[in-house]
Amino acid sequence: MDVFIEPIGKLINEFSKLPGVGKKTAQRYAYKIIGMTETEARGFADSIINCKRKVRYCKVCGNFTEEDVCEICKKRDKSVICVVKEPKDVIAMEKLREFKGVYHVLHGVISPMDGVGPNDIRIKELLARVNGGEASEVIMATNPDVEGEATAMYIAKLLKPLGINVTRLAHGIPIGSELEYTDEVTLSRALSERKSI
Amino acid sequence: MDVFIEPIGKLINEFSKLPGVGKKTAQRYAYKIIGMTETEARGFADSIINCKRKVRYCKVCGNFTEEDVCEICKKRDKSVICVVKEPKDVIAMEKLREFKGVYHVLHGVISPMDGVGPNDIRIKELLARVNGGEASEVIMATNPDVEGEATAMYIAKLLKPLGINVTRLAHGIPIGSELEYTDEVTLSRALSERKSI
Repeated sequence: MDVFIEPIGKLINEFSKLPGVGKKTAQRYAYKIIGMTETEARGFADSIINCKRKVRYCKVCGNFTEEDVCEICKKRDKSVICVVKEPKDVIAMEKLREFKGVYHVLHGVISPMDGVGPNDIRIKELLARVNGGEASEVIMATNPDVEGEATAMYIAKLLKPLGINVTRLAHGIPIGSELEYTDEVTLSRALSERKSI
Repeated sequence: MDVFIEPIGKLINEFSKLPGVGKKTAQRYAYKIIGMTETEARGFADSIINCKRKVRYCKVCGNFTEEDVCEICKKRDKSVICVVKEPKDVIAMEKLREFKGVYHVLHGVISPMDGVGPNDIRIKELLARVNGGEASEVIMATNPDVEGEATAMYIAKLLKPLGINVTRLAHGIPIGSELEYTDEVTLSRALSERKSI
């Protein structure tokens, strides 16, 4: 006999598909669901279906949206495009409430190790946008790792001949951290990009 | 403007209701759902509804079941009843595949601090079962904490006059641990309950 009755076993199995969730955590989640009222559980299930059904990618920037073109693309300053790897990076930028331009989500970065080439991510869409649009600056906001840097460099090379100002987020010591614990690459970068005060 | 579009925000909110899940983890889960196929997402949602709808408590032991009376109560040796706090404790016992008796789930333990008295948990159901049944032994398998111990003692006092053999899971040093790191209460308990070999 299996230790779990079938509907519980199935739900545990589903929860285990979530990132970082093992059998034990999935079990806790399943018990939580059982402890909910019928309305609450239905609300939970509905929001999963709704989210999956309603959310698609913006035709222009590739970010999540409920319509063909997202609110950000519709309403904001198109002269500055911030290029990011994934939709969650848009969220990180938006939380600042500082950036007034639009985004371009690559849905990946160039990574030969993983077999991802320039044609596998949304680079040609970016070129088309820049060619046909009002953009004067493109901010490369890919992650500061090997793939992110390489992708930023690759795109910068393509954009510069078009007369676009291509910028990159500054690297350096994070605010609130300590010199002692800053890794060498970051510290050396912070030193070489030092500014007069 | 909220940083998340409405269906994503709602789903993140739902995931945040799960135990130990904060906004950031909920966000990762929501992205995972968006990345699923429509069929997968529907399967997930269905298993939530199914689990909530099909799972109820066994009339006899209080464990999860799909029917009125669970498989364990139907098929197994009723002479030994193992009393546990929660359904998940049944799972822990069942994983041993050693115990052949039946269970009684209290759905809580006596805890004056939390306002839980003897009448708030399934003690009278246990007494009724023992009075009207074939039980000869009741194993108290509540957790070895203050509330669990107190509940075990309370129930033992009620059952002993009925001529029932009331036992408690042994306390002692966990297998594979080291004396040096065993807490004092456990070690003192292991000493006082030492056995000749």
